[in-house]
Amino acid sequence: MNRPAKPAAVMIVGGTEAPAEAPDVLGRFVELCGGPAAPIVVLTAASTVPDEVWDAYRPAFAAAGARACQALHVRTRDDASAPATVAKLAEARGIFISGGDQKRLMALVGGTPLHDAIRTGVRQQGICIGGTSAGASALGVHMVTEGRAEFSPEKGAVAMGAGLGLLAQCIIDQHFSQRHRINRLLTLVAANPDLAGIGVDEDTALVLAPDGAIDVVGPGAVTLVDGRHLQTNLADVGAGHIPLMLDVRVHVLPTGTALARPPDVLLPLLQPVLAALNH
Amino acid sequence: MNRPAKPAAVMIVGGTEAPAEAPDVLGRFVELCGGPAAPIVVLTAASTVPDEVWDAYRPAFAAAGARACQALHVRTRDDASAPATVAKLAEARGIFISGGDQKRLMALVGGTPLHDAIRTGVRQQGICIGGTSAGASALGVHMVTEGRAEFSPEKGAVAMGAGLGLLAQCIIDQHFSQRHRINRLLTLVAANPDLAGIGVDEDTALVLAPDGAIDVVGPGAVTLVDGRHLQTNLADVGAGHIPLMLDVRVHVLPTGTALARPPDVLLPLLQPVLAALNH
Repeated sequence: MNRPAKPAAVMIVGGTEAPAEAPDVLGRFVELCGGPAAPIVVLTAASTVPDEVWDAYRPAFAAAGARACQALHVRTRDDASAPATVAKLAEARGIFISGGDQKRLMALVGGTPLHDAIRTGVRQQGICIGGTSAGASALGVHMVTEGRAEFSPEKGAVAMGAGLGLLAQCIIDQHFSQRHRINRLLTLVAANPDLAGIGVDEDTALVLAPDGAIDVVGPGAVTLVDGRHLQTNLADVGAGHIPLMLDVRVHVLPTGTALARPPDVLLPLLQPVLAALNH
Repeated sequence: MNRPAKPAAVMIVGGTEAPAEAPDVLGRFVELCGGPAAPIVVLTAASTVPDEVWDAYRPAFAAAGARACQALHVRTRDDASAPATVAKLAEARGIFISGGDQKRLMALVGGTPLHDAIRTGVRQQGICIGGTSAGASALGVHMVTEGRAEFSPEKGAVAMGAGLGLLAQCIIDQHFSQRHRINRLLTLVAANPDLAGIGVDEDTALVLAPDGAIDVVGPGAVTLVDGRHLQTNLADVGAGHIPLMLDVRVHVLPTGTALARPPDVLLPLLQPVLAALNH
């Protein structure tokens, strides 16, 4: 494939009660897309109430300075295959995927011409990609679909599916601190030690910039879980049991974290995440 | 000092709603003390309602097989200095410290002849020591006294004090999963990377046997947090902020974990914990 002239920036947002409550996050997204004039498309397919979602995002993006922001509603797979839908991406410099249900998003968009256009646009034209809540979870090759594990890691408690495929070797969770999801992420990493666990707090975003810089915007933090060194008996315990987990490495990146490149301890974890963007 | 003929066993219990709900834990404690005939003392000093505590523990220990279990109520520092109080330890093979408030426990017992007798008995006579909830927190040289950090690690959110001093280089937290205390423990370890964070779930116990074996009894798990490799900006952020934390190593030991010795990845973390018992 063609290498992008300019690699895409990625923004992973941990969800929000209302878009207006995360002005720093949306402002940063507009900036990553190229500034106020950059055409931005808001994909609402994860939601059953796309008009309400857009009613919240339209003024919030406007307040963040975006002057060329439009909704992309997808209510059926036919919508996601219609040339008019795909054409909306032609000029876009940013795609922002709203919250809702990531299973709904994938059921409507997965494998359609719109999905192809998103992948191609991000990979080959360097369109900035952002997602919040369900839209964040769906950014990966793999995504969490449901499950709690609220109090402890628990074998079999969390289900996965296929996401949009823009970020590789990771599993993204959102509303992370607010919903006490550390054990859900540990559960996912225990079963998938090859995937970087990425937990993002509400109103907060992890930004992966095209030049390799990382930063965290918003009031909360981003938690990374590295299972590559994991020793576990997960394969031998029954469903519903807590697995033995030794040597899980955890990283907390609070708001304001701004790293020109991932430090050595994060590099082998994060480098593969971006590989899917650049091929 | 004299080396104990038989080093002490240690049982760290994560609290319980009612002692009768943790029969495995109490049964194991009786066994560690030497069996049903072993004299066991239940220290209720952490509680403002010691009679009620004893009313719950007396039948629970009896159901666990203990035939020589007695209460040790300490309502004042004078109680903790009285020869009759100290004498109760003379024949004991086990000391079990109830829940309540660890600050109350230390305020009543710290520095008294009873405290000396506990230390000496455990270190030199190999008396088995157990503690639950507040009684677990107080086992260490250092103990958590209060603070939440419920959602994220938070500088300054958790306070510490001096404990009974039986376990070194650790900080013990209890009701761990049930009260979502992972962030409280991360907060403590961020500020004290030299201390092993030990989080114990309710009705669950970490057993450190005299021969170096480790096991976990009860329905839950024990979570160990290793901050020795930590990179953090804690020193530079203000109180109330989330610190950057890189490379915190987390270990989850579920019920049924039974290790003849700590695996290599835990050995440097746990060995210093027991050092205070053996000098």
